[in-house]
Amino acid sequence: MQKPTLPKGTRDFGPEQMRKRLFIFDTIRQTFQRFGFQPLETPSMENLSTLMGKYGDEGDQLLFKILNSGDFAGSLTDADLQTGSKKLTPKISEKGLRYDLTVPFARYVVMNRNNLPMPFKRYQMQPVWRADRPQKGRYREFYQCDADVVGTDSLICEAEIILMIHEVMRNLGIQDFTLKINNRKILAGIAEAIGMPGQEGPLSVAIDKLDKIGKDKVLDELRERGFSEEAISQLDPLFTFDNASTAATLDQLTNWLAASATAQKGVAELRETLQLAELAGLENAQIEIDPTLARGLSYYTGAIFEVKANGVSIGSISGGGRYDNLTGAFGMPGLSGVGISFGVDRIYDVMDELALFPEGAGQGTKVLIIPFDADARVVALPLLSQFRTANVSAEVYPDLAKVKKMLDYANAKQIPFVVLIGSEEVQTNQLTIKNMVSGEQHKVATNDVVSFVTERIG
Amino acid sequence: MQKPTLPKGTRDFGPEQMRKRLFIFDTIRQTFQRFGFQPLETPSMENLSTLMGKYGDEGDQLLFKILNSGDFAGSLTDADLQTGSKKLTPKISEKGLRYDLTVPFARYVVMNRNNLPMPFKRYQMQPVWRADRPQKGRYREFYQCDADVVGTDSLICEAEIILMIHEVMRNLGIQDFTLKINNRKILAGIAEAIGMPGQEGPLSVAIDKLDKIGKDKVLDELRERGFSEEAISQLDPLFTFDNASTAATLDQLTNWLAASATAQKGVAELRETLQLAELAGLENAQIEIDPTLARGLSYYTGAIFEVKANGVSIGSISGGGRYDNLTGAFGMPGLSGVGISFGVDRIYDVMDELALFPEGAGQGTKVLIIPFDADARVVALPLLSQFRTANVSAEVYPDLAKVKKMLDYANAKQIPFVVLIGSEEVQTNQLTIKNMVSGEQHKVATNDVVSFVTERIG
Repeated sequence: MQKPTLPKGTRDFGPEQMRKRLFIFDTIRQTFQRFGFQPLETPSMENLSTLMGKYGDEGDQLLFKILNSGDFAGSLTDADLQTGSKKLTPKISEKGLRYDLTVPFARYVVMNRNNLPMPFKRYQMQPVWRADRPQKGRYREFYQCDADVVGTDSLICEAEIILMIHEVMRNLGIQDFTLKINNRKILAGIAEAIGMPGQEGPLSVAIDKLDKIGKDKVLDELRERGFSEEAISQLDPLFTFDNASTAATLDQLTNWLAASATAQKGVAELRETLQLAELAGLENAQIEIDPTLARGLSYYTGAIFEVKANGVSIGSISGGGRYDNLTGAFGMPGLSGVGISFGVDRIYDVMDELALFPEGAGQGTKVLIIPFDADARVVALPLLSQFRTANVSAEVYPDLAKVKKMLDYANAKQIPFVVLIGSEEVQTNQLTIKNMVSGEQHKVATNDVVSFVTERIG
Repeated sequence: MQKPTLPKGTRDFGPEQMRKRLFIFDTIRQTFQRFGFQPLETPSMENLSTLMGKYGDEGDQLLFKILNSGDFAGSLTDADLQTGSKKLTPKISEKGLRYDLTVPFARYVVMNRNNLPMPFKRYQMQPVWRADRPQKGRYREFYQCDADVVGTDSLICEAEIILMIHEVMRNLGIQDFTLKINNRKILAGIAEAIGMPGQEGPLSVAIDKLDKIGKDKVLDELRERGFSEEAISQLDPLFTFDNASTAATLDQLTNWLAASATAQKGVAELRETLQLAELAGLENAQIEIDPTLARGLSYYTGAIFEVKANGVSIGSISGGGRYDNLTGAFGMPGLSGVGISFGVDRIYDVMDELALFPEGAGQGTKVLIIPFDADARVVALPLLSQFRTANVSAEVYPDLAKVKKMLDYANAKQIPFVVLIGSEEVQTNQLTIKNMVSGEQHKVATNDVVSFVTERIG
């Protein structure tokens, strides 16, 4: 018989990993909810007509497509077969798996536009699927956690995103991070300022790589993309930001890009956003204005956000920005919104590498009760219920086995306390409690066992 | 432009529905964890070699299959096409979507057998997909919530399942339910007692329908299935159980099936299971021994469970039982276990129909802060943060709009309190708090606003 395997690029999450992941999910969910974002879930499958054409040609290739049910091949002709995979696909598949949470959200907004109170604030935490080549840190199924507010262009929403990012990071215990912020209008203004108006797209693609390939290679790439030496020489100020403070960076941008009304608007938006966040009481802000930040530019029209954890070489753990045309592809133009997405897998890697998971986040059962014989069950089972009533996760070892085996079980599951009940314990009404971390043993009266343990697990 | 639609049989869950669903998920998850079950998640996709042949021919048909990525048709021949859909499928698809949580669990246990502490208690709460014909209450994507313990045949585990079902129902607020229990050995014993040993399969299929079609039609079906008049006449006691108590039913079974050692073993198992549950302190047990319960019999070898909510005509909301060969299909025979599955969609329907959701379960944001002008934001934004620090979900209305529009927004989102801040409020430091349920308005000093609201939302 063949050994079962997992499809490549997919993973099982066992108990310890799951509990750590649940800590991340719960923390993000609670923060989203405290900020007034409302939960939404959409189906894993969408019609291919909803998904295709939304992620570029490459994205269309990376969609997982679902074979039609029933006799899907019944009406195929030999000619169909000879058209090749690309043309054959729509004849045998009409549905695909969700590629991100943004397009399903847009589809939902359009389908429910008459019943949604605007502004509409939603969060969504669900897996997405991409038929990417699997590699370290890249999977074919992974979770996204998105929060968006649509139907308003108020900068209060940008300020809220900044507050929420700080809150999520602190609640996770990631104290040392950098929130980079930019604005599409500043990128557009830079393109204007160097005499290449409208070219912020190719400009961004090149300068986005500054961290990775360095200034010289960025300039080479700009030359290849048709930027003149004169334009390139005017880019110099971009490489001289000292990032002493957000205010200093904004002042530098104001001076450098004085001639671009667009850039001035972008700078003013960032300035107001930061003021609003400060007004709301943001302390120890870990914000850096980064005029090179573009995040692929994609559909962003205003603020652009990106979060990295410091001290680890793991990519960004969160990103987002403002867009003005979320639902345009579905015939509902001009809907402005701003959103942020947290990547659970990368957050997990950061917290694991920096040992940031709180003690107990990987822990499940707190108490294992071990009755040594059938008589001991008379004491064990009521005690079990008392623990659970006190909201302490508790188990009873169900079989009669060797003591070592049962203690090994507790250790393997990282259960911190074991209650041992033999005939002596039943007669004296004094149970043995073993602390599995310290190895200490105590005799405790049956009635005091629950409080003894609860006091020690906090 | 075509209006976007959802694939048939799938659903969006908007904010109010989601919050109610999260109440159900959280309640079940917390109960599972308190009972020492550990979380597991498996990928949405499995290899078809893992899934096929595990659910019968019909199940194989109902699997959603995923088209291979890339040039899947490249190596197809005209001959392949002419073989028809069934033979073509394995040539263009190697993966399918999860059909239930049991087979992926079995696959996980086999792949991790050397590292799992046994007995292994896991719970799993994830969607499953079936290409069924959609109809009322039947969807192509729905959640299952399963808890299983494998690697032990101790009846303590059956007792724990009984306790846990009662606990889940009570924590959900479903007070009036019936937990029906049977045992495969009793069904086998009935077949023996009427002279048809080994025929509990066809026997069960017929008597399982007793509730729906009545005794006469059940007997007709048995005749069609080859049961003699003599055998059928001996079935009479099956229709005369008065269910006065579980003890009475067990006594009746003991007498009726005195000649079958198998049946006696089944009765003894049920008796001990109930004793263990009682020992653990089960109060107000809502248990009925039902010797006709079979749940399709499938792979059950011992206890069989089924839960129905009383007072609604909605099918079973939970079911499970003991099995002895979970992992046999993957080359690891003889692993005994017992499990229970809760159906979130049906539980939702029950709770909705009986109005059992606790007040606030559908509610999100508790406070909306409305600043009437830019100056008012200076008061509004710090207040917003104070609410959140006090763990109260709070929002600020981000735009300047007409009062009616903003209050309509609060009503549409069922936000119970609104804080109104205009120039007068800013000057006097007395903010207006409006209770959106009662319509009452209060003037409250800015510093007291948070405590005023928290006292009233409990």
